[in-house]
Amino acid sequence: MADKKVNPSILPGFMELLPNEQILFNNMIEKVKDSYERYGFLPIDTPVIEKSEVLLAKGGGETEKQIYKVVKGDTDMSLRFDLTVPLARYVAMHFHELSFPFRRYHIAKVYRGEKNQKGRFREFYQADIDIIGNGELSILNDAEIPSVIYTTFKELGFENFTIKINNRKLLQGFFENLNINNYQEVLRIVDKLEKIGIENVRKELLEIGINQEKYEKIRDFIMFEGDNLSTLSFLKELKIENVTFSDGLKELETVCYYIEKFGVPKNNFKIDLTIARGLDYYTGTVYETFLNDYPKIGSICSGGRYDNLSEFYTNQKLPGVGISIGLTRLFYQLREAGIISADNEKLIKALVIPMDDYLDQSIEISNLLRKNDISTQIYLENAKMSKKLNYANKINVPYVIIVGEDEVNSNIYTVKNMKTGEQTKMTIDDIILELSSRN
Amino acid sequence: MADKKVNPSILPGFMELLPNEQILFNNMIEKVKDSYERYGFLPIDTPVIEKSEVLLAKGGGETEKQIYKVVKGDTDMSLRFDLTVPLARYVAMHFHELSFPFRRYHIAKVYRGEKNQKGRFREFYQADIDIIGNGELSILNDAEIPSVIYTTFKELGFENFTIKINNRKLLQGFFENLNINNYQEVLRIVDKLEKIGIENVRKELLEIGINQEKYEKIRDFIMFEGDNLSTLSFLKELKIENVTFSDGLKELETVCYYIEKFGVPKNNFKIDLTIARGLDYYTGTVYETFLNDYPKIGSICSGGRYDNLSEFYTNQKLPGVGISIGLTRLFYQLREAGIISADNEKLIKALVIPMDDYLDQSIEISNLLRKNDISTQIYLENAKMSKKLNYANKINVPYVIIVGEDEVNSNIYTVKNMKTGEQTKMTIDDIILELSSRN
Repeated sequence: MADKKVNPSILPGFMELLPNEQILFNNMIEKVKDSYERYGFLPIDTPVIEKSEVLLAKGGGETEKQIYKVVKGDTDMSLRFDLTVPLARYVAMHFHELSFPFRRYHIAKVYRGEKNQKGRFREFYQADIDIIGNGELSILNDAEIPSVIYTTFKELGFENFTIKINNRKLLQGFFENLNINNYQEVLRIVDKLEKIGIENVRKELLEIGINQEKYEKIRDFIMFEGDNLSTLSFLKELKIENVTFSDGLKELETVCYYIEKFGVPKNNFKIDLTIARGLDYYTGTVYETFLNDYPKIGSICSGGRYDNLSEFYTNQKLPGVGISIGLTRLFYQLREAGIISADNEKLIKALVIPMDDYLDQSIEISNLLRKNDISTQIYLENAKMSKKLNYANKINVPYVIIVGEDEVNSNIYTVKNMKTGEQTKMTIDDIILELSSRN
Repeated sequence: MADKKVNPSILPGFMELLPNEQILFNNMIEKVKDSYERYGFLPIDTPVIEKSEVLLAKGGGETEKQIYKVVKGDTDMSLRFDLTVPLARYVAMHFHELSFPFRRYHIAKVYRGEKNQKGRFREFYQADIDIIGNGELSILNDAEIPSVIYTTFKELGFENFTIKINNRKLLQGFFENLNINNYQEVLRIVDKLEKIGIENVRKELLEIGINQEKYEKIRDFIMFEGDNLSTLSFLKELKIENVTFSDGLKELETVCYYIEKFGVPKNNFKIDLTIARGLDYYTGTVYETFLNDYPKIGSICSGGRYDNLSEFYTNQKLPGVGISIGLTRLFYQLREAGIISADNEKLIKALVIPMDDYLDQSIEISNLLRKNDISTQIYLENAKMSKKLNYANKINVPYVIIVGEDEVNSNIYTVKNMKTGEQTKMTIDDIILELSSRN
């Protein structure tokens, strides 16, 4: 027996749930997984620890500052900070064993030593899909991805959400046409429009040397409001003579046409010319997804098209398109917004309570229920009936089956519905039928 | 485009699978999870990184040498090396929010910087269940655990396995009765019997000061062969007057009686007086599980009863009983032994191949299949039919649906069974029926 106790605590910025909430979280993961699999994405699982030279091959930026280093022996190792870099390494490493287009999903934890603040986590689940082509990849894939987003969020119980779509080539061509060379920098400012407002965007643009005339053209462009058809018309009418712009416009038009074919309803997707995605590796289509009733939550699913997934590991050209859902943050925010609560989630279907000397028969009944795939617990401790029923209440089990002398003699058991308090006498066959039907 | 490429590789001792094997591995996890849930165990998920003072509260031994330290800021952090220490911390930390007996399962990765050797992994999945009591926990739980082991391995497709059972009190009492005080040391040697043979056990015992007379008593004890009833008789007939021994014997008898009640067939469990489990925190029942046809694989599921789960974090007395399956090692060994192979595992049910200009109709069919929960991929790239069919072969998809002019005009589609090569003409409704029934 140790005398000096260590305080049982976890690190700040890490999420840990009680079982009733963990069940909700796991259900969320299950639904995302089912939806990804329905679209023919294959699972992979990569090591959490990788060589630092692999994870940081691109180098620089926030990534390097946020990374968790791992110490054991001489190798410089780190924890992965996303699932994209491990994918890039995976595809380059297993190139000759994979079939392209390679469609994979990966749902797993990643690590970022971010500043500690509410709703930001240092360990969190990402749920990614990507489609990787060998040399080239049809633009049609860019149209299929939103249908995966749509199906996934429908499965998660949402109706009122919008997948916002844009194309980086369109933006790049537009800025090139204005003779703006530092367009990556401009994009990063434009991307903040929703957050900081147009006046601050103006200020920041002027600060980096954009003049008033050009600012106004940018403003008219990013502030354009209309449905998809009128946005496409507006873009055409700009009559911008720039190949990149024309390519982007053509891609966006194709993507919008086929998104509908892939079954996404018109009011669940929308062209939004302000969506740029801060990351500079996106090269074409970009996506962000918003819950219309909870704009403050921000984008819940983002991604896009990139030209060259594994450029730091191989000379193979591997274009791809993909999305990522930050599940831990999403769960936290949905819970904070009161959209999900642990009230009605039950994993255990029945608690069998033996009375007095009827343990053997209680075990038999538990065996039967479990054989019929009904999740069952049997109360094995020595306790008064009131304590046993109190336990049933606390673990939130929907049915309690009491096994005593009368029950064993008559083969008719007392089933208590813990929600209604109602007690019914039933045969074992009826209990199995009743509990199986209530999935 | 980066010019100097980083070699895309992973660290030694880490397992990474191709998708077809990953599917098999995930199926294994699913089955274990389903079985654990059927017995009313609740899920938890704890951080992979914890404070070193928490993980190493017990201190000393192999653990400290094998631990991966994590560096970021000032806090001394480490990666968990098992799921038991995090459970001990979890139960102490959330004590007032949990209901006891608390039954949890946890399937997750753990990290140990072991020596690099074949079949040993530094990152591996463990699948644990534990039942924790508040103050006390009925011995009946020790009898229920083997039924979870039995169900789990049956679900995994095994028939011929043996759950070996012993009781540490029995061993302790036996050694006390021989006036052997360093019985923990003796147990560690006895535990190696299977590996090193009786002659080496003798040598090692004599080395630590056990005399020949005592050795012979120990030998007769651990070498006893018989079915459960005769083992229990043998133990009774020893007439050892030691309270610990008597307690252990009574517990073992109760556990054996109820294991059968819990539905474990007689030939799937057996008392084995040599099972001691090296770890010194087990205090009563101990389990090890062996595949009878593959004795070399060693124990595939071990565990036991302990007196005080969280003694390093709280004064609450929390006895428990649990088991752990090392899934990564098990998967590796089953694959090496040729027991599982990736041959017949398919996640994608159908590949829709559009001909010429029939993309829209192909998308429609994919949508329909997916709505009917049939995992479907559509081939979106520009390629010759031979390349498309070759892709279907490589991804190992069971059905290909070809959509061309004839098909669209007649609403009758060509479905190719990729295993038999057989081509059938079918309506969409029939396709859905056919593919749904083949789960």
